[in-house]
This record gives sequence, structure tokens and C-alpha cells, in this order.
Amino acid sequence: MDWKAAIEAARARIAGHVLKTPVVAPRGFGLNHAIEMKLEQMQHTGSFKARGAFNTLLAGPVPQAGLVAASGGNHGAAVAYAARALGHQAHIFVPEMAGPSKIALIRETGAQLTVVSGEYANALAAAQEYEDASGAMQIHAYDAPATVAGQGTCMAEWEAQGLQADTVLIAVGGGGLIAGALAWLQGARKVVAVEPETSCALNAALKAVQPVDVDVSGVAANALGARRIGDICFGLAVEHGATSVLVSDAAITAAQTALWRELRQLVEPAGATALAALMSGAYRPEPGERVAVLVCGANVAPDPLA
Amino acid sequence: MDWKAAIEAARARIAGHVLKTPVVAPRGFGLNHAIEMKLEQMQHTGSFKARGAFNTLLAGPVPQAGLVAASGGNHGAAVAYAARALGHQAHIFVPEMAGPSKIALIRETGAQLTVVSGEYANALAAAQEYEDASGAMQIHAYDAPATVAGQGTCMAEWEAQGLQADTVLIAVGGGGLIAGALAWLQGARKVVAVEPETSCALNAALKAVQPVDVDVSGVAANALGARRIGDICFGLAVEHGATSVLVSDAAITAAQTALWRELRQLVEPAGATALAALMSGAYRPEPGERVAVLVCGANVAPDPLA
Repeated sequence: MDWKAAIEAARARIAGHVLKTPVVAPRGFGLNHAIEMKLEQMQHTGSFKARGAFNTLLAGPVPQAGLVAASGGNHGAAVAYAARALGHQAHIFVPEMAGPSKIALIRETGAQLTVVSGEYANALAAAQEYEDASGAMQIHAYDAPATVAGQGTCMAEWEAQGLQADTVLIAVGGGGLIAGALAWLQGARKVVAVEPETSCALNAALKAVQPVDVDVSGVAANALGARRIGDICFGLAVEHGATSVLVSDAAITAAQTALWRELRQLVEPAGATALAALMSGAYRPEPGERVAVLVCGANVAPDPLA
Repeated sequence: MDWKAAIEAARARIAGHVLKTPVVAPRGFGLNHAIEMKLEQMQHTGSFKARGAFNTLLAGPVPQAGLVAASGGNHGAAVAYAARALGHQAHIFVPEMAGPSKIALIRETGAQLTVVSGEYANALAAAQEYEDASGAMQIHAYDAPATVAGQGTCMAEWEAQGLQADTVLIAVGGGGLIAGALAWLQGARKVVAVEPETSCALNAALKAVQPVDVDVSGVAANALGARRIGDICFGLAVEHGATSVLVSDAAITAAQTALWRELRQLVEPAGATALAALMSGAYRPEPGERVAVLVCGANVAPDPLA
């Protein structure tokens, strides 16, 4: 697959529908160097997921029955938002673990919503049943080419904004965002995959040399708690030699706190997970190595203004 | 005074100490046009005030007795932060209305802190007494040339980042931030001064054709509740014909909510006041007029992670 072309096409397709999110290069966070950051949590519906959703909807025809998606919350909100913007119906299946903030966010879009007991995998099974029965088009949260190409526009945009880093740290759940970055960069910069110790589908897959099921839990599980890494992500991670590191829930929470205290950016745990790898020392740059962190989600619970 | 030169000098002086805050141009907010925004609330200590504080401290010698400042909270936090960064003592006088979040923010810096009953003017009187008794250097929150030149670096930086707007909306308390913008722009763009209906020292001064005392109250009073506009601001507002508009507390709260819902930026009421003028229609751009909003403070209460 010509990922560069697919991502360039996605970028043109979604340009009028997504926000060009800002970049900043703060010092602080207990580190002795600046960190380039892209504040992708400012994207519509509070995460990068709107990129893949718009790309999928705009890339081809959408059936009369509309859209279906299974989601820990952020992908569902993005699909619901993109569906409304483009005049389609949407039915979103979320696991209970998505939590009330994310469920409310989806409900506000006017999408049909089904809350499924248990974890993400259960919501995905329910969405697949609905797809089969209704003829609705499913937008996979991370393991579909159009989703990955859409998420890849985030890194393409960042490079166009003057990204200088040698190394980019990205949080991984099912792997859509990092797959897009790997697909765009094609080895031009080092990519570090950061996962919670308790939700580490990519790390487990790299060890097993194939995608395997993992248990998921912890503070970031409603965004990063995929039971199995996407095949597209796994393939790209192996092809380009992504570095995998793990962080504790305590490290994630410390990074989340620091992003508020030092930069007044209130993010969800998943949104702080990449920074946690630097702050905790799970990833230690070499002297002179320039690092960047992708801040990817802000659907924090409880909603601070609810 | 050669304000352009003073602001250029300030910019060079403080470059290593302040954050180059990001810019973004979102659509939304119930408007049919994009709004350029500078997210200055990401500045150290959560407001633009760090610019004036660092400029003052770096522009000349600081006495052994250190610094003193009176502040509704944001200026005090900025002076305390800059003092610590540069190795000086600081004594900050805050009015009770600053609230626990801002008082805690100052306390964390290790500065001496005195909470004064009542409003900002009382804290200013106490700071002046302390200055006379101790020999400490007072950094005025808004009505001193070095403070204004420091705040002016925000607009200088924004222009260097490619600001396109014909018109810039800026919230006004004592007027330091807008004075810096007027001083830098020298009429090159239209400047709209936005004040709460219940804390409108500049609006009252423009009507009276001289600074006059006003009563202050409302949701943004702990940041914008100056009893009298600064002479420097008043002079520059008259010289350059700043447009003055007023917004209600309800409009401020609606803008604050929208900044979180649509852009995941959690700001304090003062930080949303300029946007409130656009969203409420208190300021209506002409067709084709390009507008920009300076988002200036994020020390929201309660602290969402406290």
C-alpha cells in the first residue's frame, strides 16, 4: 500500500472538517530539554479520532443505513460528530468502561447509542452484529486503512508545522494513531510506542511476534484498552522497528497533573501517556536527541464544567 | 516613549524565560467564520503576566529586599514565579477575592504571601506600605512601563507567528495586556477592549475622558476587577482609538464553556471574556473582517486536579 499517497489524499479530503491543531515546545516537566508537543487533544470531540472518521466517510459512498462504530468513547464521539456534520445516521456501541463523560459526549451528537457491559471487545462484537443485521457501514476504531490514513494526517500536519524532533513518542491503544505516524514517516524519525503496563497490546504482540490477546485495566483503559493490537499497526511497527516502552498508572497520572500545572492543558490519562514515558524515565533520550510528544486526548472524567 | 523599541528589547530579554504560546484558528463557537486565537493562558503560571514580571526583573537591578506585588492572583503568581526563577525574594499581597486556587498557586512558589480583606485596591495599598517600609521593589500589575512592555511582547510574538486578523479582541482589567498590544500595534490593527459589565474601568474612563473609580464584581472580577484603569492604558486607548465593549457574566460563562466543549481549553472567566464579545454579539465584525481573540488566563477555580 502506498501510505504516503493515501495520507496525502486523506489530508486534502478532511482539510475543511478537522482542526489544524497547534504545536508548542515547552521546557519543564522535570526534564532538562524542551519537548515539542502537538496538542491534538484540541481536535473536534477531544481526540485525534475525528481525522480517521472524516477520512472514512469522505473516501467513498455511505449506505442509507448509515454508520456503526464500537468505541471506548473517543472514536465513537468522533464518528458521531463526523456523521452529523455530513448528514449521516450513526449507531455507536460503547463499553460501560467508557464512563459517563464520554457517553454524554456521544449522546450530545444525536447518534444512537448502545452501552455494552464489560470492555471494548464486547462493544466491538455488538457493533459487528449490528453491521451484519442493518447494512450499516462499520468504521473500525483503528484497524482499517482509511482510519489509519486519516490518523496519519496528524503526523503529516506536524511535519508541515516544522517538527524538528529526532524521536516522537505516541500513546498506543489499538494502534491507529501510531500506525498512521509510522505509515507517514516511513522510518524518517524514530517512533516510540508508549503503553500502560496494564494495557499493552502492542508490547505483547512484539514479544510474541504476532498480535495476541491481553487483559486491559488501569487509568487509561477506556481509551487505550484494546485487547489486541491492530494488524495494520503490528505490521508497520515491525517493518519500521518501533520502540516499545511501558508506563505505570502512577506515571500517567503524574504526567496528566504536570500538563495541567505547567501548561494548563487538561487531558485524559491516555493523552498524558506519551509524556509519562519521558517524565518517568521509561524512555531516556540520548544526549542531544530531540524529542516530541503527541498529546492525543482530553475527554477527562469528570467533565470539569459539567 | 518609543514603545516599539521597548517591546523589542523586552522580547529579547525574556526570550529564555517565557513560553512561546501557540496559535490556532478554529471554526465554531456559533459563528460563521474562523477565529484566530493565541493561547496565552498556557504561559507560565497560567496567564500572560509572566511576560511583564520577567521583563521588569531583568531590566534593572533588584534590591536585596526583593520584590513586592499586589495582585488579584495572576500577577502575584507570575512575580513569585519569576522571582524564584531569578533567585529573588518576593512578597505578594492578594485580596481575598483572588480565591483559593490562585492563592495556592502563589504559595507553591515559596513566596511570602499576605491575604488582604476586600478587593484588589486594598491589596495594592498594603503592598505600597510594605514597599515603603522594606525597600523592596514593587512590580505594578499593569500601570508601569516595564510591565506594559513585557505584556506587549505577546502581540509582537503573535504577529511573528503570522497573525492575519484585522481586529484583535482583548480582555481588560487594569489594562496592562491591552496597553502592550496598543503600544506594539501603533494603530496597525483595530483593537477591541472587552470588559465585564460589572468591572469596566476602561469603559468608564473613556466615557469620563479620564480614569475614574468604578465598583467591581462578577465572575471575572478576581482577574479583571481593577477599580481604576491604568494611566498608561488609558492614554494608549485614547491615542489609538480602542473600541470598548461590555459583556455580561452569562456571556463570559457561555464562552468559557464553549472553549472547553469545542477546543478542550479550560480557562478562567477572564480568559474567555474576549471571546464572549464575539459569541454574544457585543462585538459584531463587518462582513469579511478577520478577527482574533487573545485567550489570556486559565487559573480556574476550583483547580480541576486539586
